[in-house]
Parts: sequence; structure tokens; C-alpha cells
Amino acid sequence: MRVDPRPIGIFDSGVGGLTVLREVKRRLPRESTVYLGDTARVPYGPRSAATVTKYAINNARTLLALADIKALVVACNTASAHALPALTEALPIPVVGVIEPGARAALAASTHGTIVVLGTSGTVRSGAYPRAIGPSRRVEARACPLFVPLVEEGWTTGDVPRLIAEQYLRDLPTDTSVIVLGCTHYPLLAPVLRAAVPAPIDGAAATAVELEALLRARDIQAPADSARRHRLLVTDAPEQLARVAPAFLGEAVDPASVELVDVLMTA
Amino acid sequence: MRVDPRPIGIFDSGVGGLTVLREVKRRLPRESTVYLGDTARVPYGPRSAATVTKYAINNARTLLALADIKALVVACNTASAHALPALTEALPIPVVGVIEPGARAALAASTHGTIVVLGTSGTVRSGAYPRAIGPSRRVEARACPLFVPLVEEGWTTGDVPRLIAEQYLRDLPTDTSVIVLGCTHYPLLAPVLRAAVPAPIDGAAATAVELEALLRARDIQAPADSARRHRLLVTDAPEQLARVAPAFLGEAVDPASVELVDVLMTA
Repeated sequence: MRVDPRPIGIFDSGVGGLTVLREVKRRLPRESTVYLGDTARVPYGPRSAATVTKYAINNARTLLALADIKALVVACNTASAHALPALTEALPIPVVGVIEPGARAALAASTHGTIVVLGTSGTVRSGAYPRAIGPSRRVEARACPLFVPLVEEGWTTGDVPRLIAEQYLRDLPTDTSVIVLGCTHYPLLAPVLRAAVPAPIDGAAATAVELEALLRARDIQAPADSARRHRLLVTDAPEQLARVAPAFLGEAVDPASVELVDVLMTA
Repeated sequence: MRVDPRPIGIFDSGVGGLTVLREVKRRLPRESTVYLGDTARVPYGPRSAATVTKYAINNARTLLALADIKALVVACNTASAHALPALTEALPIPVVGVIEPGARAALAASTHGTIVVLGTSGTVRSGAYPRAIGPSRRVEARACPLFVPLVEEGWTTGDVPRLIAEQYLRDLPTDTSVIVLGCTHYPLLAPVLRAAVPAPIDGAAATAVELEALLRARDIQAPADSARRHRLLVTDAPEQLARVAPAFLGEAVDPASVELVDVLMTA
């Protein structure tokens, strides 16, 4: 059995992908990670497919150049929706997105009825979830553009998020059996969403499972005795990431440990 | 008297600055304009001063290179707050921001009491409004980070914006005499804000007055018989700008007329 001590690269438009990093660290405690939050260009949700793809490739090349990653997790639904084929083609390493695992988790959670997917406008427009879920189930994807700013602002409880959630979740199909949180920010709104809908699920844990299978299949798992390291990189405002990170990551983050980087602009 | 038919350049992080373009077109009907909305990197409000300054200089150099502008209007409070000195130093043309005119409009609107400024986190953190208003008046600046996403989403009336506005405007100083809308998006929320506060004012009209004075002082006004042209440029998703522009600009925008450009990345 070969081993590979190089880190796993993870990127997101900002802090939302830390919910995926959390699951990766939990599931793969031997692995080193390098997380890049593209906070200088967040959010990706409203942007065009071409722009999100360009940003995704910038981020991936930056992680390769700065940290020699052995695999990439696209911990952002919008980037997974628009850029996964382009990333897979452009990169010399395996790439895992969050949409296929999220779709599989939805199919595992229910055997009938409509699957409702909440996501950014970009994710909804892309049609990526209905494609990944396949023709066996009815899928209704709804854009919830205010959820990301609400979470970034820290307004995850109270009347404002409740009212906004009620608007977005109005008139759900009567046979709705599962709600997929198709954006890595949304799990932070789970308490508000749970009041309105049956158990919402997200793809973070399923993504970590898929990553584990991929590392095993390629024989590139970290050695048992390797020195683990977890780096956090951002393209803007490290102190802001450090401030909000604990809610996503479930642990404290030392502001001095967050590195400010410029992404490589070659697409 | 000399004349100068070259256009006036105007940039904003996105669509908000169209409220300034509207006033410029109204006040200076002879002038040609080129508006650049940096929709690939909107919003600027939460970003660091260094990043906003870099983006502002990218935008200004792009307007110079593509359209040979004779003067620049920074139609974004956050960019005016962070980048005006750097722009003035870097560019060979005169530069007008929106904060000085907004501050003067606030001083003209009231002679006593506290001036409350609503703005993005970046504008508030910069302290630009208290500096521009000066020590004669008490200034309270409040960050309202959800207002921009609300306006971008088109939610400018109803319970959600009303509740959010109530939160941001809670416990205003009892001697508040004027509220400045220190972000070019916020005038679209004026109906909701008017329910909560005395007549809110914004700097768009005052900025057009300042621009007019500057063109006259430099002797670079457009000739009376010049062929006027108004160009709209964006860095992403032209069709989205065309869709929301009428609310800001007060006139219809042909989607086919909005040009997609790459900004020059040399800072």
C-alpha cells in the first residue's frame, strides 16, 4: 500500500465550505488540509457560470502552487454546479464536488416524493441537482439568495431569518419528502429551517465519505504517523474569517494563523 | 472657453451607482458617460480597504483604457471611503467621490443635532463620513450589511425590509436631525426607511453638482453640439444589470447594449 502525506485542498467562495472541512477533519483525522476561502470575490451564487469557472480554476491552481495538494474538494455548491467538468479537465489531481454526494444523500434519505433543493441562483440555474438526482424523482430547486448574506451577517435566529425562510419555503409541493441544503452556508440556518420543513439534509458528511473512498481507491491516503497540518488561506480580510469560522468549523480559529494570499489569475 | 467631448467615467461595485449616473445625466445633459459596474466582484462593502483600493484602481484604469475618460466619478461610497486618495494620486484626470458631496448635503439639510449615516461595514469602519462632516456635528455611522443584498434581490417593500430596517435603526439618538443614505443602493429602500426616520438624504444629486463645478473649473465641459453617448459596461452578467437597472436609473436598458468587459488587473 502506498501512502501520500500531501494535503487535501479545499476551496469555497468564503466561509461556508468550512462546514465541509469540519466533516473532512472528522472523517479523515490523519489527513492534512489546506482550505482556501475566496473572500475577495465572495459570493459566487449570483455570478455567471463563466466567471465562477474562472474563479474556481484560479483557486485550484493557487492551492496546487502554494501547497502541492494531492486531491481537491470543491466545497461550494455554486462552483461544483458550474465548474466541476472544467476543473477535472484542467487539473492533474482528482476532484470531488459537493453536489453528487448531496444528491446521493437525498436519495438515501427518502424513497418517494419530491426532493426540494435550496441553493443559490447559480446552483438553481445550473440544473446540477436535478441532473445528479436523476429522472427517478421529482426535484424542485429554489433559489434563496438572501440566506448567504444572513449567515454572513450572523442573523441565523429570530424574526428576520424566520420570515425570509417562510417566503422561500412557501407552497412547497405537498409530497415533499426531503429538503436538501444545497449551499454550504445553509446548515447554519438549520434551526430556523427545521421549524418550517422536514429534516433538512446537507452534503458535507457525504462529501467526506466520497473523498475517503477516492483516497483509498487511488491509494493516496496519509500515513498513520504523518505530521498533520491544517492551513486556512483567504484572499481578503483574514480577521473576518477567524471571527465567523467557529460557527462553521466547530472550533476556535487563531486569527494570526489565517494566511492572506493572492490567487493566481491564470485561468 | 475650451470644450472637451470625451466622456465622464463612472464606476461602482455593481448597480447602485446608477442612482448617481441618473443625476449626472439629469444635471449634465450634454455630457457623454461610460458607466462600469464591477459585477464580477460586487459587493465591496465587507472587503478590506486594500482590496477595495485595488479594485477601484483596476476599474479606473479600465475606463481610461477603453473609453479615454476626462474625469472619474466614484459612484460607490465604500470605494470613495477607502480609495479616493489612491485614485487621485494614480490617475491623470480629476476624481469625484460621493462622500464629500453627501456630507455637504447633510450639513445643508440641518443645522443641529446628530447626523446618522447608514452605510456598508467598510464605509462605517473607514470613518470617512465623520471626517468629511467635521467636528461641528455629532455623527453616528451604522453598518447595514443586509440592505445591499435586499435591494439586489428586489425586496424593497414588505415585512422583511421593514423588520431589518427597524433592527438597524433601533435606538437612534434622540436628537437625530438627518439620516444620510451612505450607500448608492439605499435610496431604493427610501419608502421603508421613511416610515422609520425623518427625510433620508443621499449624495447622488450633490455629486452631480460637484462634477458640474469641476468640469467648469477645469474648462472641460462637452460642447453644446456634441454627439452624446451613454455606455454601460459590466464585468459579469450583463443581462442581470439590464434587468435591475431601471429601478436605479429610472429608464429602460436594452440588454444587448450592456457590454461585458474584463478589468485591467494592473493596480
